[in-house]
Amino acid sequence: MATTITEYDTIAAISTPPGEGAISIVRLSGENAVQTAETLFKGKDLTKVASHTINYGHILDPDDGQVVDEVMVSVLRAPKTYTREDMVEINCHGGIVPTNRILQLLLGQGARLAEPGEFTKRAFLNGRVDLTQAESVMDLIRAKTDRAMQVAVDQLDGDLRRLITNLRQEILEVLAQVEVNIDYPEYDTDQMTTQMLKEKAEMVLAKVDELLQTASQGKVLREGLATAIVGRPNVGKSSLLNHMLHEDKAIVTDVAGTTRDVLEEYVNVRGVPLKLIDTAGIRDTEDKVEKIGVARSRKAITQADLILLVLDASQPLTPEDLELLDATADKQRIVVLNKQDLPVRMELGDRVDASQIVRTSITTGAGVAALDTKIADLFNDGIENSQTTLMVSNSRQIGLLRQAKVSLQAVLDGIQAGMPIDLVQIDMTAAWDKLGEITGDAAPDELITQLFSQFCLGK
Amino acid sequence: MATTITEYDTIAAISTPPGEGAISIVRLSGENAVQTAETLFKGKDLTKVASHTINYGHILDPDDGQVVDEVMVSVLRAPKTYTREDMVEINCHGGIVPTNRILQLLLGQGARLAEPGEFTKRAFLNGRVDLTQAESVMDLIRAKTDRAMQVAVDQLDGDLRRLITNLRQEILEVLAQVEVNIDYPEYDTDQMTTQMLKEKAEMVLAKVDELLQTASQGKVLREGLATAIVGRPNVGKSSLLNHMLHEDKAIVTDVAGTTRDVLEEYVNVRGVPLKLIDTAGIRDTEDKVEKIGVARSRKAITQADLILLVLDASQPLTPEDLELLDATADKQRIVVLNKQDLPVRMELGDRVDASQIVRTSITTGAGVAALDTKIADLFNDGIENSQTTLMVSNSRQIGLLRQAKVSLQAVLDGIQAGMPIDLVQIDMTAAWDKLGEITGDAAPDELITQLFSQFCLGK
Repeated sequence: MATTITEYDTIAAISTPPGEGAISIVRLSGENAVQTAETLFKGKDLTKVASHTINYGHILDPDDGQVVDEVMVSVLRAPKTYTREDMVEINCHGGIVPTNRILQLLLGQGARLAEPGEFTKRAFLNGRVDLTQAESVMDLIRAKTDRAMQVAVDQLDGDLRRLITNLRQEILEVLAQVEVNIDYPEYDTDQMTTQMLKEKAEMVLAKVDELLQTASQGKVLREGLATAIVGRPNVGKSSLLNHMLHEDKAIVTDVAGTTRDVLEEYVNVRGVPLKLIDTAGIRDTEDKVEKIGVARSRKAITQADLILLVLDASQPLTPEDLELLDATADKQRIVVLNKQDLPVRMELGDRVDASQIVRTSITTGAGVAALDTKIADLFNDGIENSQTTLMVSNSRQIGLLRQAKVSLQAVLDGIQAGMPIDLVQIDMTAAWDKLGEITGDAAPDELITQLFSQFCLGK
Repeated sequence: MATTITEYDTIAAISTPPGEGAISIVRLSGENAVQTAETLFKGKDLTKVASHTINYGHILDPDDGQVVDEVMVSVLRAPKTYTREDMVEINCHGGIVPTNRILQLLLGQGARLAEPGEFTKRAFLNGRVDLTQAESVMDLIRAKTDRAMQVAVDQLDGDLRRLITNLRQEILEVLAQVEVNIDYPEYDTDQMTTQMLKEKAEMVLAKVDELLQTASQGKVLREGLATAIVGRPNVGKSSLLNHMLHEDKAIVTDVAGTTRDVLEEYVNVRGVPLKLIDTAGIRDTEDKVEKIGVARSRKAITQADLILLVLDASQPLTPEDLELLDATADKQRIVVLNKQDLPVRMELGDRVDASQIVRTSITTGAGVAALDTKIADLFNDGIENSQTTLMVSNSRQIGLLRQAKVSLQAVLDGIQAGMPIDLVQIDMTAAWDKLGEITGDAAPDELITQLFSQFCLGK
């Protein structure tokens, strides 16, 4: 990781969400950021204004001198900026045409269109943030609930970075001791060093395990708990869906580029984000009852982390009900016995564990709060009711922690088996490397390129 | 219109477009803007920083002290601000949850959620802009082409305001003269005053007429030229649509709140924005050929300002073709004789004026540039090739100009008919009032409320 500030070329991008709004921001970073903005700006001389000031004026088209927009230009000089480079933010009247026009003019003045995540990549390359902090920026933007946001904010603040950096420091100290040992075998401190290696490996392993235990919850917070509502027609799936989508609980996310094709729907149930699977299917269902089949449900069941199986308690079990009960038996599920406002005529027998059952009448609202509670409990199960929000949620980080765990386990196994200390040392070094990849202290260039390419434009 | 700065309560809103992006802005305006932000901010004391500075820090939840986001806070003190009040802009990590959370916290600290357009309304009430400038802000945001943007920018700069203000001043001077006349009839300057009234009314009327002549073009620039592509199945409507939607010409606008139901598609043809009508119909067409009927086309034809009637020149005219030719005969239309790459077997006879015909082969691209030119020519027809971009585009402004014109005409008719000067004076005063409504110098409160309610949130 570069820790000195390097001068890169000047990049530009629109940093506000696409679309019409009151304000849009076009952002510049790099050696010539201020000069590039100044060539288009009529107002104070931006190259002479103080850093961290906001300057009123107009953007002019250099070709014909015509005013393009009335703007406020923020000048932010290195190193106290997002990228640690000189930065300029042009706040213009929101709107697709003027914002794009300003960006085009900046590109005409020699700025280069920023790649996705390139501003944050520079913050990383210039040493302002590590990879965990960079990743948390996107987690924060994409957070679906307050709790997911809180986890991201803490990671952005460097909590994970500090923990990993400390663990690596611990490993480094013991590795240094091992080096001494190998170089000066005459001291014969072998046993002491081995003991120290063992203790350190155990300590680091415990911390890594602790982090990995948060992984499943962390992933759910970040990505949502993939949830499928299944059941045969007319049992109340649509009503349940509507209940979940109402009351300001729903966050509908347009996936960029495929706005009209893929639409992910999230609902926030007591702080737990559920990512609903195949709701289009449900919506179709009640219109075209005959179209839905168990085959379609099976697909949703396979993809889901949680199944909400809705049954009509006012009817005896049908063969389809039985088939769905069977198909979901091995999954995390909640069986919603709906239509409790009608006389109950369903006998489940011992097919479903009592802990998986919630009785509702979704039309009257009865039992619906209990359903929400059960969903939240499932998620919270096993989490200490602690105040800590240090969680790993990111597949990349989780994968590297698992690899570090394997290496640490190999250290302990090697010591147990009486392997020579210089072989054990190799595994300990591997653990140190894997932890370093998490923060980016030891990350290959391709990884870094790939990681930032997943960011949104202008970030 | 209030010209002194009035203190209003403190309002807050999210000012960037909704959705995920690199940066979002939460904006505050009002007497307590800075203090309200300061209660949540950890960093420098915002109440003590200089105006127009950007301050790094964190937003904390006052309930538990937890960090909500890392932010840059701009402090802008009255009167050199958008609203002429104290303003604060909190730039936070874009994203739905953190941005909303910050807004909620500000509301918890006593700020009130801003109504749509309320920031701009305050700029108007505090005398920084007139109504034409305020309206141009929204025109700028919604501009579909560079030219529409230019018209809006000039209006924002006050071009229309100055013209209208000058015309009112001219009227006011002559009215003052008339007053003198009425108060001191002994001077017997009747004839001279009448002559002056006549000259002024003619001069103002000429200017009003000039502005009204720009109205149709102005409206097209602002709202797009409603355009329908019609024709029977398989003549090339979809190909034409695809040609228009490609090459970066298309601007697809999601209408807030109805994202998935109403989607307006604009294409920019040589600077002329076309708002395409019923393109969903066209897209369906080629899949389900039998479904489209002349009935559906008739509806689109009724709504459209311009018809692109596509015919397959390789086939003889069919009864449907004839029906469509007949239905569009009285409309502004271009008849696209497509499939010129095949042997031509269509005989139009004298059914269509030659000036309305363009011959194309949309699949090979032949004639397509000529079609674009014809569309642009239709729009530009009658506009002087002047550099002026002073145009009226807004229905409200156009309506008031028409009313002013009626009053000015009444002045001239009255003078012609030898009516008493104090009756003529009433019409001249009415013209003065109507022009005043355009700038807001003489606008009723309800109008102002209604006008700003059409703005977007956070503006």
